[in-house]
Amino acid sequence: MSETRTYVIIGGVAGGMSAATRLRRLDERARIIVVERGEHVSFANCGLPYHVGGVIDDRDALILQTPAALGERFALDVRVRTEAIAIDPDARTVMVRDLASGGEESIPYDALVLSPGASPVRIPIPGVERGLVLRDLADMDAIIAAAKGATRAVVAGAGFIGLELAENLHHRGLDVTIVEMLPQVLRPFDVEMAELVAQRIREAGVTLRLETSLVAIGDKHVVVGEGEQIPADLVVLSVGVRPESGLARDAGLALDERGYIVVDDYQRTSDPHIWAVGDAVVKQRVDGPATPVWLAGLANRHGRLAADAIAGRPHAAVPALGTAIIGLFGLTAAAVGRTERELRDEGRAIRVIHTHPLDHAGYYPGATQLAMKLIVDEQTDRILGAQAVGESGADKRIDVIATAMAGGLTASALADLELAYAPQFASAKDPVNMLGYIADNLAGGEQSVQWHELRARQADGWILVDVRTDEENAAGAIPGSRLIPLDELREHAEGLRGKRVIVHCKVGQRGHTAARLLEQYGVTVANLDGGYLTWSAGAAATGLPTKGHAA
Amino acid sequence: MSETRTYVIIGGVAGGMSAATRLRRLDERARIIVVERGEHVSFANCGLPYHVGGVIDDRDALILQTPAALGERFALDVRVRTEAIAIDPDARTVMVRDLASGGEESIPYDALVLSPGASPVRIPIPGVERGLVLRDLADMDAIIAAAKGATRAVVAGAGFIGLELAENLHHRGLDVTIVEMLPQVLRPFDVEMAELVAQRIREAGVTLRLETSLVAIGDKHVVVGEGEQIPADLVVLSVGVRPESGLARDAGLALDERGYIVVDDYQRTSDPHIWAVGDAVVKQRVDGPATPVWLAGLANRHGRLAADAIAGRPHAAVPALGTAIIGLFGLTAAAVGRTERELRDEGRAIRVIHTHPLDHAGYYPGATQLAMKLIVDEQTDRILGAQAVGESGADKRIDVIATAMAGGLTASALADLELAYAPQFASAKDPVNMLGYIADNLAGGEQSVQWHELRARQADGWILVDVRTDEENAAGAIPGSRLIPLDELREHAEGLRGKRVIVHCKVGQRGHTAARLLEQYGVTVANLDGGYLTWSAGAAATGLPTKGHAA
Repeated sequence: MSETRTYVIIGGVAGGMSAATRLRRLDERARIIVVERGEHVSFANCGLPYHVGGVIDDRDALILQTPAALGERFALDVRVRTEAIAIDPDARTVMVRDLASGGEESIPYDALVLSPGASPVRIPIPGVERGLVLRDLADMDAIIAAAKGATRAVVAGAGFIGLELAENLHHRGLDVTIVEMLPQVLRPFDVEMAELVAQRIREAGVTLRLETSLVAIGDKHVVVGEGEQIPADLVVLSVGVRPESGLARDAGLALDERGYIVVDDYQRTSDPHIWAVGDAVVKQRVDGPATPVWLAGLANRHGRLAADAIAGRPHAAVPALGTAIIGLFGLTAAAVGRTERELRDEGRAIRVIHTHPLDHAGYYPGATQLAMKLIVDEQTDRILGAQAVGESGADKRIDVIATAMAGGLTASALADLELAYAPQFASAKDPVNMLGYIADNLAGGEQSVQWHELRARQADGWILVDVRTDEENAAGAIPGSRLIPLDELREHAEGLRGKRVIVHCKVGQRGHTAARLLEQYGVTVANLDGGYLTWSAGAAATGLPTKGHAA
Repeated sequence: MSETRTYVIIGGVAGGMSAATRLRRLDERARIIVVERGEHVSFANCGLPYHVGGVIDDRDALILQTPAALGERFALDVRVRTEAIAIDPDARTVMVRDLASGGEESIPYDALVLSPGASPVRIPIPGVERGLVLRDLADMDAIIAAAKGATRAVVAGAGFIGLELAENLHHRGLDVTIVEMLPQVLRPFDVEMAELVAQRIREAGVTLRLETSLVAIGDKHVVVGEGEQIPADLVVLSVGVRPESGLARDAGLALDERGYIVVDDYQRTSDPHIWAVGDAVVKQRVDGPATPVWLAGLANRHGRLAADAIAGRPHAAVPALGTAIIGLFGLTAAAVGRTERELRDEGRAIRVIHTHPLDHAGYYPGATQLAMKLIVDEQTDRILGAQAVGESGADKRIDVIATAMAGGLTASALADLELAYAPQFASAKDPVNMLGYIADNLAGGEQSVQWHELRARQADGWILVDVRTDEENAAGAIPGSRLIPLDELREHAEGLRGKRVIVHCKVGQRGHTAARLLEQYGVTVANLDGGYLTWSAGAAATGLPTKGHAA
């Protein structure tokens, strides 16, 4: 065998531990040292909110591996409560300090893997030290301790972790208020999709305050906006993270303007003997600029890639899609790729599709409605992003679309996917197929209008025709619409010849049939994408006026 | 507008109705006639077994569209209880007969779409007329009528419909026996995967008789095998189907050797004015010969393609993957593409991968174990097929793999898929990612052994090492294995240098770690694919001897 090499991994969670165990599988003789500042390596950080709520009852279930077990199985030298304090890239040594004894040691390395992660941001407001954060088991323990005896909690930040915490604090019986600066929850979703999650949060009895700044934390309250006080026995800050890249910066490694460590396609930093993975590292995105993406799956994958490169078996990372998911109060929201908001901001020519199919055949009990969105490159028909919200099946559909994106399938090709169908699992035309059919229709020249484009079109003289039934229209309608139920449309078609008409139904499907019909009568016609349901979610999110009761 | 064209569709379910409604959307002025021999068009044939069991309570829920509603919305001339009795391709006319009045009419067509379907085979045995079949609502009604007051049912045939019926008859409280000629249930699965379904059927209290022929049906019993009688108040035959291609044959259309209608990539038959879709039509398969594929999703898709081609917007069909799924006694079994059995019969060089991951993170409540199988082309790393069986999440994983196949992803590329992860939905390394990691390892030269290859290897002198724990080994072990728990393997590695060793664990993952370790000590090593779990399912299915208790 070759000479013994020494690999040092800084940070023993997710990416770091993936790198360490992969290195062992590739090099049985290497000396592999894992340095972790905290008390635990390889813990289930995505599970922390669920122990707060008692959904995961057993705290030990969150500790996936112990240093001793890793030592035994993988012959790793795992040092917890040990901090790396300086790297000398020229000498190829890293100085580490035992936090208990204060003793320091300089370790020479052949390759160094940084997996320092990102830490919750503490915003500069009065009383910020009273706010708790959630990153590791100790933070979780502190939140649980504070929740005992507390009755009112404020969670600042409506991102994934903030919402999961809010749900779990509510589940513990606390009166929870979420305070979010932005006009929506969950930025990886567009506003009309995020609105569905916001509605569910409110229905569950949690107070959601959007476009509201946290300005101070008092003893038993927080102060928001213009000085309003909200009572709070417990305040959790979940307003974003900051990369722990100080060590990398001090070592002279290249960072981006936000302080994230820059790596090449093989996870190598600007130093040829130092690799980096995980939440402190910038990632190449599909169809967009390199950005941080804080996802455990990517951290694990990149840990493996770093190990492969170090061991002389380089594989390039594939660009990140940023696939993300949350389960909240019985609802699932999942997304992949880029949002309409981002792409419109960049001036990209895109097609947007909304649909509201059932998760499985309507004739089989228990079917629930999904809200789905697909974002497509107008020139190439390539899929740029997708979002799904529903009680069941949203995860499956986003996984399928993420896979289609990885395989380079066009949006229209989603129609041809052969997905498993029996009535309890899907429909003969799966929701993903439906998106493909609509994409194919649009690629073929059919016109649609987005919910946020409707008012401008109406102002420009387009006639809005509601092709739903009388009953549906009476229950809630779009201002300015004229009702002609689909089954009576043929009789009225000649009268619309030469006119510009937007048709709409509840979800878009009858609208499509109506549009095809009118087009053949010489009407210039567009279908309101996603129908009344998408429009009403968008209207509710942005304060557009509605007529009648929203469905 | 152009001259009025006449389109005739024969068969008003699935593919036929998709063609009819699509034709209307493409040609508002056409005359569109749908001829259906039965009483209903557009009914939910995949739901029929579930009304037998009362899972779908409302019979009307199975009737998706009525002729009147279709007439109103799509201006279709729908004629139920009307049979097409002859086609004159030269004159372009079809003769139809009203089954109530006996009146006949010759209808000229510009294009004809055949969607005749396939009918259940009635095997030539004494008493076959006593056997019921399940194809339409009338058949379903007959089964329900027969089940009332019955206590014992025999279902002949362990395909999808047979098993669904068996479950639903059991659900009604009947004592059910399934009789199957083949040595396994569900032929789209390999035997060790089908075994998991067979075990579940037996655990649920249904008698499953494999390799058993039905030879006669008596009044209150059936006769099987060498004359054994099984009591039966109710007998359902579900032993395969036969294409209803008599009309096509009489019209001189090209059929394959099994009598299925041959079409081109645009669903056009050998006659330029006649198209055909659905269960009576042969389909081009991915990686294999053209075969029938009886799936509703394909029928719908091909109906649309036929309409597009007729309307002058031809799109070629993509080759069929044959994605199929069944839910049975709380278990889901799904498959896509080709089986190991078929490919080995054809002499194809393949790699086979089994794994048994949890459907979601083990630290989150409710995780259940999946059995997954991937079949890969040895030369190209292309995915040829996959199978999944489990209580939750099998549908999602097969849909993802079907999409990867459609996108031309290699098996190794499954490792890089970015699938949605939160602990209640998946693991940071999703089961599909795990298959990709294993495929990548095998593509990189690691060796594995299949459960059915093990005995020959042992006979050839390979040493079988069980790297599980003492407790696992004591609960059930493979004959001839030697126990060296993984965490003690390093101490024994030198002693194995130069030897040929097969390692195995429970599912294959510790085996992989063991193999990587031993290889670096100069051992010629292979990992038993899928570990003890796959081996024991294969052993149970094929009657191999086992040692101790099966897990």
